[in-house]
Amino acid sequence: MGDRNYKQDIVIDYSNVMSSAVGSDHGLLQSELEGLHPRASAIHKWLAGLKKDKKVGFFDLHETDTRPIKKYAAKVRERYENMVVLGIGGSALGTIAVNNAVNHSLSNLLPKRKRNGYPRLFVADNIDPDQFGELLHTLDPKKTLFNVISKSGTTAETMSQFMIVYDMLNKKLKGKWKKKVVITTDAKKGLLREMVKEHKLDSFEVPANVGGRFSVFSAVGLLPLACAGVDIDALLKGSARMAERTAADDIMKNPAYLFSSILYLADIAKRKPMVVMMPYSSKLYGIADWFRQLWAESLGKRYSRDGKEVYTGQTPIKALGATDQHSQVQLYVEGPFDKVTVFLEVEKFKTAMGIPEVYKDKPELAYLAGSSLNDLIRVEMLGTQYALTTHNRPNFSIKLPELNEYVLGQLVYLLELSTAFSGGLYNIDPFDQPGVEFGKDFAYAMMGREGYAGLKAEIQDKMKNIPRRITQ
Amino acid sequence: MGDRNYKQDIVIDYSNVMSSAVGSDHGLLQSELEGLHPRASAIHKWLAGLKKDKKVGFFDLHETDTRPIKKYAAKVRERYENMVVLGIGGSALGTIAVNNAVNHSLSNLLPKRKRNGYPRLFVADNIDPDQFGELLHTLDPKKTLFNVISKSGTTAETMSQFMIVYDMLNKKLKGKWKKKVVITTDAKKGLLREMVKEHKLDSFEVPANVGGRFSVFSAVGLLPLACAGVDIDALLKGSARMAERTAADDIMKNPAYLFSSILYLADIAKRKPMVVMMPYSSKLYGIADWFRQLWAESLGKRYSRDGKEVYTGQTPIKALGATDQHSQVQLYVEGPFDKVTVFLEVEKFKTAMGIPEVYKDKPELAYLAGSSLNDLIRVEMLGTQYALTTHNRPNFSIKLPELNEYVLGQLVYLLELSTAFSGGLYNIDPFDQPGVEFGKDFAYAMMGREGYAGLKAEIQDKMKNIPRRITQ
Repeated sequence: MGDRNYKQDIVIDYSNVMSSAVGSDHGLLQSELEGLHPRASAIHKWLAGLKKDKKVGFFDLHETDTRPIKKYAAKVRERYENMVVLGIGGSALGTIAVNNAVNHSLSNLLPKRKRNGYPRLFVADNIDPDQFGELLHTLDPKKTLFNVISKSGTTAETMSQFMIVYDMLNKKLKGKWKKKVVITTDAKKGLLREMVKEHKLDSFEVPANVGGRFSVFSAVGLLPLACAGVDIDALLKGSARMAERTAADDIMKNPAYLFSSILYLADIAKRKPMVVMMPYSSKLYGIADWFRQLWAESLGKRYSRDGKEVYTGQTPIKALGATDQHSQVQLYVEGPFDKVTVFLEVEKFKTAMGIPEVYKDKPELAYLAGSSLNDLIRVEMLGTQYALTTHNRPNFSIKLPELNEYVLGQLVYLLELSTAFSGGLYNIDPFDQPGVEFGKDFAYAMMGREGYAGLKAEIQDKMKNIPRRITQ
Repeated sequence: MGDRNYKQDIVIDYSNVMSSAVGSDHGLLQSELEGLHPRASAIHKWLAGLKKDKKVGFFDLHETDTRPIKKYAAKVRERYENMVVLGIGGSALGTIAVNNAVNHSLSNLLPKRKRNGYPRLFVADNIDPDQFGELLHTLDPKKTLFNVISKSGTTAETMSQFMIVYDMLNKKLKGKWKKKVVITTDAKKGLLREMVKEHKLDSFEVPANVGGRFSVFSAVGLLPLACAGVDIDALLKGSARMAERTAADDIMKNPAYLFSSILYLADIAKRKPMVVMMPYSSKLYGIADWFRQLWAESLGKRYSRDGKEVYTGQTPIKALGATDQHSQVQLYVEGPFDKVTVFLEVEKFKTAMGIPEVYKDKPELAYLAGSSLNDLIRVEMLGTQYALTTHNRPNFSIKLPELNEYVLGQLVYLLELSTAFSGGLYNIDPFDQPGVEFGKDFAYAMMGREGYAGLKAEIQDKMKNIPRRITQ
């Protein structure tokens, strides 16, 4: 971590979601927020029970023992040029998000010494044949470590990639292929764990009570991040700090509960079915993508916890400042009143990029000369906030003192806890994903997996009944 | 272009947006589509007038003379290791989209000969000081060509970048800096054109009647794309082919008008304020991002063409198959009925990635052994389409025979024309962006530009009146 300052706390500025800023049709009253207090207390107890009974594990991930991970990462640093994560969804998004936030944006183009000797990190989170083929053809398999990540050990995308990589390594390196693979999966169950035993592969564990989208602070994220030179202890310290700050049930004092409550009221009481997360920092764009999974998969549910059809879920949208001022902001400012925007604001960038005192004779540029990109991006953010606010569009801001591991650890835990709490507000189970299983079964059936012939016939029958309409 | 087959046409399969597939609450009737015919004829005439009178130029960009661009690109190929675009929004998104779709996904990591000698392409479309600093520190300025793109010549982000680059080059290379810069701007007006004349810089033109978000087939996109080895003639041939296929006003025969009409009816008649564009191809993700600008900035409008307050605009959302099945699809299948999804489907990938016949003894993997990533990604897409359809979520598909320039040229023109036509359906001006100007003025005022002191005082006064609410 660049600046080892464990005093930096994230704060939330929610001035612009209140009626006093955006009017009562779209803004919140203090009384509306406080009206959630009784429910917040009940949800707080429910979550505390899940934590205490070890039913939900992400609450405690900052207690992960990082020593074996760091030891392994030190070996990887010595031996490899490249590390490739084979994983998708929760096995990929957190790693990408934190790596992008902390490391050099062109890290993989730098010579190894400029990465402090750490290998290049690639995350193969799709099965696009062109893209995956290009990745495998670009890297030297002898100098590459593959980290296969699947909690269940059956994820079709990841296992297909693994089968291809296994076969390639086996053909090129014979028995030595085993040294090129490290597995992250359940401690006891599943096919990948079987393979670890069968082939004596290196491995790490995903705790049974940690779901994919909440797993970045388990070995799922910590191993590749440590291998990429990220200070994982500082990440966990940040997470612990946010856990400490969110220990009480008072919405007005608990930043995670406040975050949830604002978005819940915006959705339910103010008809904002969309939440835009808009970092003013290219390096935080991955966090918005990671948040998309957390929010969508946790809260997009057909049934409530008591079995009623509810069809809940606010749609998370990622946008990037300042770039999307030239793309999305026109719609956000002038379009329908159907969004609430969360800004991620970096208060101090690592680099000061001054704009030199040139072209001072040109009135179109004189106001920029002598300023800096740091000032400009800040003013542009304030401009977007001002435009939204004066057009009655609620928006608020998570302020990050710096982009470092300690601050990111706080942010990650804040958003995870908010998501769990929102599950309580919507009265749905934030930890399952029944709609995803449906698609998996379809793939099994159509790929001819044993035992799925009946489902295949049923699907084909249903598809036949839809009249085809195709242009020309 | 890999496979030079000028017979491949894009088709649209819209079976799953119809009532017969998703029910009448969410699906369309043939009669609803046909009910738009009279309006379609009127809009068609309006657009034909704009084209004929040269008020709107994107219709004719496939007639761009590519010879000077190709000649210039050939020189660049000989002389440079890197090309950096300094541009934002419409000056960046189209280039990124087409380059990603056509070129190797790790192109910048390859040795030059594996890129057929073309330079590496970087697009600097943000002013994040860390990211921009890292880019400048990574590239050798002697081996780098900077393409500064701004139609107006005043875009704050791009001009700040240019001032920094100019100063750096000037200090390192003295007078030779002029050879490291090529400008793309208006033919006559604006500060960048003045600088071209003053310093005798190389330059290309943006036609005055082509707006930023419609400009990828002008020199704005064609120059950097040609420098990155893209076959720009094939792109324009594809665009011309789509223009030919969309020459008539019959919605049922004109793929662009059909695309617009489906989304318009989904929004207005079936209450779907969001359109998800979901390519099943990592390389097409940039197209979804480019489309986001086109759709949001063109259709997100406060006022109708006759001056009424309308607050229109369907929110475009990008998603990526198969990756987002592990992130967004849960919400799309089980959440609120508030979306229509457009799939981008690649019928034939360049690479065949077979899954080897390994682990056939494991029932969890046997169904994959001997198959391919190509089959798997296709089946997963069908699975998502099936899940959406059986859960009454309208969706349709643009089928691309292959990922090559000719097909991409068609796709780009299809989406541009659809956007213009949608402007007609919503009765707003799809070619302006008044909400963006608001933010620009804010930035000018707060950065202290001459003549904006009054506005600055006004802004500060308004901001003072919003009570601040900040956690801890």
